[in-house]
Amino acid sequence: MQNFIFDNPTRIIFGKGTIARIGNEVKRFGTNVLLVYGQGSIKKHGIYDQVISSLTEANLSIVEFPGVKANPVFSHVLKGIELARSQNINVVLAVGGGSVIDTAKTIAAGVKAEPGDDIWDFFTFKKKIRNALPILTVLTVSASASEMNPTAVITKEEGAQKFSISSPLIQPRASALDPTVLFSLPTECSAYSAVDVITHLLEGYFNNTEPESPLQDRLVEGIMKTVMESTEAILKDPQNYNARANMMWSATLAFNGLTAAGMGLISLPAHMIEHSLSALYDIAHGAGLSIIFPGWMKYAVHKRPAKFAQLGRKIFDIRETDDLKAAVEGITRLERWFSSVGSPTSMKEASIPGSDIDRIADNSAALAKLWGLKDYTREVIVEVLHLCKA
Amino acid sequence: MQNFIFDNPTRIIFGKGTIARIGNEVKRFGTNVLLVYGQGSIKKHGIYDQVISSLTEANLSIVEFPGVKANPVFSHVLKGIELARSQNINVVLAVGGGSVIDTAKTIAAGVKAEPGDDIWDFFTFKKKIRNALPILTVLTVSASASEMNPTAVITKEEGAQKFSISSPLIQPRASALDPTVLFSLPTECSAYSAVDVITHLLEGYFNNTEPESPLQDRLVEGIMKTVMESTEAILKDPQNYNARANMMWSATLAFNGLTAAGMGLISLPAHMIEHSLSALYDIAHGAGLSIIFPGWMKYAVHKRPAKFAQLGRKIFDIRETDDLKAAVEGITRLERWFSSVGSPTSMKEASIPGSDIDRIADNSAALAKLWGLKDYTREVIVEVLHLCKA
Repeated sequence: MQNFIFDNPTRIIFGKGTIARIGNEVKRFGTNVLLVYGQGSIKKHGIYDQVISSLTEANLSIVEFPGVKANPVFSHVLKGIELARSQNINVVLAVGGGSVIDTAKTIAAGVKAEPGDDIWDFFTFKKKIRNALPILTVLTVSASASEMNPTAVITKEEGAQKFSISSPLIQPRASALDPTVLFSLPTECSAYSAVDVITHLLEGYFNNTEPESPLQDRLVEGIMKTVMESTEAILKDPQNYNARANMMWSATLAFNGLTAAGMGLISLPAHMIEHSLSALYDIAHGAGLSIIFPGWMKYAVHKRPAKFAQLGRKIFDIRETDDLKAAVEGITRLERWFSSVGSPTSMKEASIPGSDIDRIADNSAALAKLWGLKDYTREVIVEVLHLCKA
Repeated sequence: MQNFIFDNPTRIIFGKGTIARIGNEVKRFGTNVLLVYGQGSIKKHGIYDQVISSLTEANLSIVEFPGVKANPVFSHVLKGIELARSQNINVVLAVGGGSVIDTAKTIAAGVKAEPGDDIWDFFTFKKKIRNALPILTVLTVSASASEMNPTAVITKEEGAQKFSISSPLIQPRASALDPTVLFSLPTECSAYSAVDVITHLLEGYFNNTEPESPLQDRLVEGIMKTVMESTEAILKDPQNYNARANMMWSATLAFNGLTAAGMGLISLPAHMIEHSLSALYDIAHGAGLSIIFPGWMKYAVHKRPAKFAQLGRKIFDIRETDDLKAAVEGITRLERWFSSVGSPTSMKEASIPGSDIDRIADNSAALAKLWGLKDYTREVIVEVLHLCKA
């Protein structure tokens, strides 16, 4: 086990009816709230009313900042920062999924940046976040774990750069997770969430620097099985509370630092290549991941067949004793599972032409440099993308 | 899944060489440190020197309060409170295992009690902890998870009352966990630690109010397997770093709220009966647990055979399809495992005569009232104890 620091102070308020408690949580940190949300689906499903009522009961002033899109963009974040500054906002509440929370986190850091700072410098690691407004969340799409981690991902339209920031200052102080808000999610969104959570778990499982991580492996395998089982139940009955709840808490635990603690450095090559995909095309992050991850596994399996075989045996009960055969069978089974829940597993399925591979690889090779993934040269990325094509 | 709040802000600094960082952590909270430790074994093994050197480098004043015993006693806690008050202590550092940390936690709360308050009222729930000094820890025995939870257990000699307190105010702010400090633990102590951790996991697994907890069950099973595997490796080679590290982090995760979150109310009947055992006899908590837990399982198996069978199948690969048979086989296997690591599994083995059952049951029945375990009447406790006798 590698040395690590585990420090995750987000208060999670989990279960039916917990949105009503968010006002009192927000009140601990400020009185003038920026309410960040998306395209208005929270209004259709009663979530907006619950939030407003809780904030109002806690006597808080509310300034609304709606309009966050999937794969949230930097120009919109800048508008949020301007609004927050002009309205003397002192606390930020995100009501949404990863895109909304990541927008809110970047606004929280941006408001407290030095005058004249270029906020994008935080994303290119030229400048460090030194201060931020407190941020809280009401989660409405479960996948990113942004509700309990210090990271945000934003796309700068110019140059199609999908980059990220990470700082304990933008870690949410508290998050309300009510599984009933997931009842109305579109089917494909539930599927994409599952893909995202599984790849969060597996990038750590396959791409860590610790040769042996029995505890973390078991946590990953246990959470992954729960995600698969829950998702199958959710697709049959979207209002299955227990399945939604198991999925919701699993998604948070999958990327809040728990399974990664002790694994050493973890790289996220499949997420990196996917970031290029969803920066360049209008595609959901989860859908992008189910295209990239199986191809990446086919590329990477030869480097660590025993670990890939372990996944096949633990998750899919594969009895094959030869590691490489068990590994390959496991990859096929996972790819089939992604298909079975309705997520695409090839560029072709998502109408991304193979002739675009050069363009995607250019974008991704630039990210590889920024993230320090030295093994992922442009050539390697092209090789992976060819395995994702058909 | 039941509603829950998960709020665990302890910063864990894990790995080789991390004791050197405790001074800077303590400094975030105070300058005048009460250093609480045990019978001096930390001096034999170089831990004391590392702590003093880190505190000194951080320019902190140190007041020492040694002498904590296993099953720590209330009279000693009172001396610590007096010393801390007289020396204007503003932060408490525990260097030890559960006994030392629990003593330090109670001192931290006691110092800030109202003048004239009877500190024992916190333990009988007559008074609530409203303030406490900040507390940090350097862990030297891994079992209680007190380094990352809000609970402390103390014995009042008069009446042999082994009672507990719990408050977020006494949750450690930061804990340094260096697995190398465990290298010098006596063999039996490593075994007792494993028993304690396994029963922490299994009391939650068997005694929760949530009918189905697939995610938590998998976390419990994964951590339990790791504890068993690590302990076996440790008994063969006490200096196996990876085994010590896996055990150390597993012990923390086993009782820091993670596996319990979503399980609803959890009762700890076996811990309760064991508290009476170690309040009345000079016996290690882990040894007491390996005596009580198998007997308790034999009593409880008929109420929930499917869950007990699940344990047998998941942990011991029992193939038996009949639930009750698989359950009973699993209990036998766990009892044998406790024996195999050198922990006693009957009162007889620990020289506690069967004729003492009435006396133990009296003590325990009083605890059952305090803890609200209505099903555990004196008669039931006697029945369980008879199953622990031989």
